[in-house]
Amino acid sequence: MKARIKITLKNGVLDPQGKAIQNALGSLGFTGIEEVRQGKYIEVDLAESDETAARDTVDRMCKNLLANMVIENYAFELVT
Amino acid sequence: MKARIKITLKNGVLDPQGKAIQNALGSLGFTGIEEVRQGKYIEVDLAESDETAARDTVDRMCKNLLANMVIENYAFELVT
Repeated sequence: MKARIKITLKNGVLDPQGKAIQNALGSLGFTGIEEVRQGKYIEVDLAESDETAARDTVDRMCKNLLANMVIENYAFELVT
Repeated sequence: MKARIKITLKNGVLDPQGKAIQNALGSLGFTGIEEVRQGKYIEVDLAESDETAARDTVDRMCKNLLANMVIENYAFELVT
């Protein structure tokens, strides 16, 4: 079972990396860009085949290591 | 219109950051982790409201700046 995890900065947290991308896109001639936010995307392959157990495991992984819960949110989906 | 872009390393490209996460998860007591791959997740808010035009714009953004096409793949979805 594979978990696809998206980790994003919470609203209101400054995102200088996203700002840099926005400026770079502007320099390349792209217009009408209102905001850019950069996050992380992590794929985890698990041996676990039970969906409930896998969901619980990935939830704990995110809380304990992958996401900084003070400034980041996470969301994930499981695919078989 | 908002674009949610996932950028991942191509198969076969070494991912030391993913490996580090895998080892850290192992140290924390998580078992049965077969592979971890880290990618990037970028959200772009566009003023563009036409879906076809937005799709074309985001495609060009990915090819020209966001993804390194030699070692990375990208995929995105548009939400209104």
